[in-house]
Amino acid sequence: MQLQQLFSPSVQHTLDVIGIFVFAISGALLAVRKNFDIFGIAVLAEVTALGGGLFRDLVIGAVPPAAFTDLGYFVTPLLAALVVFFLHPHVERIQAAVLVFDAAGLGLFCVSGTTKAYSYGLGLTASATLGLATAVGGGVLRDVLANEVPSLLRWDRDLYAVPAIVGATMVVLCVRYDALNPFTSGLAAVTAFVLRLLAMRFHWRAPRAWNRRSTVTEE
Amino acid sequence: MQLQQLFSPSVQHTLDVIGIFVFAISGALLAVRKNFDIFGIAVLAEVTALGGGLFRDLVIGAVPPAAFTDLGYFVTPLLAALVVFFLHPHVERIQAAVLVFDAAGLGLFCVSGTTKAYSYGLGLTASATLGLATAVGGGVLRDVLANEVPSLLRWDRDLYAVPAIVGATMVVLCVRYDALNPFTSGLAAVTAFVLRLLAMRFHWRAPRAWNRRSTVTEE
Amino acid sequence: MQLQQLFSPSVQHTLDVIGIFVFAISGALLAVRKNFDIFGIAVLAEVTALGGGLFRDLVIGAVPPAAFTDLGYFVTPLLAALVVFFLHPHVERIQAAVLVFDAAGLGLFCVSGTTKAYSYGLGLTASATLGLATAVGGGVLRDVLANEVPSLLRWDRDLYAVPAIVGATMVVLCVRYDALNPFTSGLAAVTAFVLRLLAMRFHWRAPRAWNRRSTVTEE
Repeated sequence: MQLQQLFSPSVQHTLDVIGIFVFAISGALLAVRKNFDIFGIAVLAEVTALGGGLFRDLVIGAVPPAAFTDLGYFVTPLLAALVVFFLHPHVERIQAAVLVFDAAGLGLFCVSGTTKAYSYGLGLTASATLGLATAVGGGVLRDVLANEVPSLLRWDRDLYAVPAIVGATMVVLCVRYDALNPFTSGLAAVTAFVLRLLAMRFHWRAPRAWNRRSTVTEE
Repeated sequence: MQLQQLFSPSVQHTLDVIGIFVFAISGALLAVRKNFDIFGIAVLAEVTALGGGLFRDLVIGAVPPAAFTDLGYFVTPLLAALVVFFLHPHVERIQAAVLVFDAAGLGLFCVSGTTKAYSYGLGLTASATLGLATAVGGGVLRDVLANEVPSLLRWDRDLYAVPAIVGATMVVLCVRYDALNPFTSGLAAVTAFVLRLLAMRFHWRAPRAWNRRSTVTEE
Repeated sequence: MQLQQLFSPSVQHTLDVIGIFVFAISGALLAVRKNFDIFGIAVLAEVTALGGGLFRDLVIGAVPPAAFTDLGYFVTPLLAALVVFFLHPHVERIQAAVLVFDAAGLGLFCVSGTTKAYSYGLGLTASATLGLATAVGGGVLRDVLANEVPSLLRWDRDLYAVPAIVGATMVVLCVRYDALNPFTSGLAAVTAFVLRLLAMRFHWRAPRAWNRRSTVTEE
């Protein structure tokens, strides 16, 4: 429990809501691109923003999940959906900014997800895995509902999971060496955030399996 | 608990089984259209009929979910699968009737889902959301398994979520003002049912985001 | 509880890990075929190997699920992903062997899934259903994430669910007649295994619904 209060509750809540908002924007934008109606936009915003945390809470037995007990968590994606609905040509124009915010959400969620899982008694590896799942799960659900191959899994996308894995690993190492505090947590989140920005800037990609039938060699 | 017994248990159970049956028919028909075999038909019937309630029960912590404790809930979709397997040209011919039954299922499930969630201690907004999820979740899972864009999210389908949202909202308003009883519950279910029928009759659709690249203007 | 210890714990654990490994190989191979990067390969290996058991554990309320409490369960799919990453042309060449191992995993998981569900207090039908879900659930999640129609549902694949249904049914019949022991459990697993091998050898398929518009007649 103590672990969950790394930051003052209001600071933590504000960080969570920011992460939820930016993830919801990415879900709503995909919904617009897929030509969904306003309800489809709202659903995809909710799922993208809350799906990862929902999965984590079901796995650790934290029911009902935070997504259903905190009204702010539920309303935020609806606001994001409205913003996109009315302003999406502008939101698309600032796509680069959206990606920066999404990277911030990735950093925040991998840290808070890992911390929450550990505070529910899971082991270090399992906590880091759930931190990763919290950070990337919503995006995977978003892509599945939009009937697309999850961009998490595609080789032609800049590294997304690795920054979250690094952030989650830093958290569990801090736990292991009794050094988890607001500063080290913040450092883990910032590290994941910066790594993701660098991955986008320099188009870092992960290798694919060596494939003799492939004529493409973009590793 | 008291809330769950709006109707006598046997009446409630009968209503549930009817809703399960009609949703299962819609899943089985999609399976036939996708050229699945008899087991695929049975799986899609089960998932469509029970998926929404299963999700609700996992979220509210009602485990094992009703889908796995009530044999009638489990067997009903299998019967629907058999009906479709042997009679599907006839079932397709009465597609209009199937849609009417599906609308009835939508009305029944949004009310019973909302009520059950509230009886497990969730807030009003969360209860209504889970009522909606109970009503539409099975159909979303059906479409995901069939590798199609969920018809819930598509702009070119008549309103489906809105009637369920209205029904679920009526239930939580009744709870809020202490007016939930078999009559008001039934009214909420009938309202959702009739709204869905009207949406189909008059092809009510929800707006999409204004899209300057789109040449289509069917809003 | 007693039921879970049909075999000595170490034997049971070894059987589980073998099943997890072979399922993970099938997930990793599909990831390679879909051109995913190394992280996509690892994710699909994990989901394929652990998804069915994860679903079962959420349904029966066994949280946190075994997938997150047993480090061996988590690491095994990563090893499978590495094997495929470096050796996949060789693994593909021995595709027939992989299918045999996958059949073994199917037999093991339908038995252990049914047994675990029953030991958590579910009824016989529900236990058998969860045994089936344990055995085939990972493969369904694998195909959904890879954006393909689940091969479980396709008519043009050799019988996959039926052997698992037979194995799970044998287990619940043994429970019903108080005859569940390591020998009968093993017999159920071997029966499912052999049935699956025969289905592959002789291309047994399940019938589709009679379809007057279809010109194909491969039932």
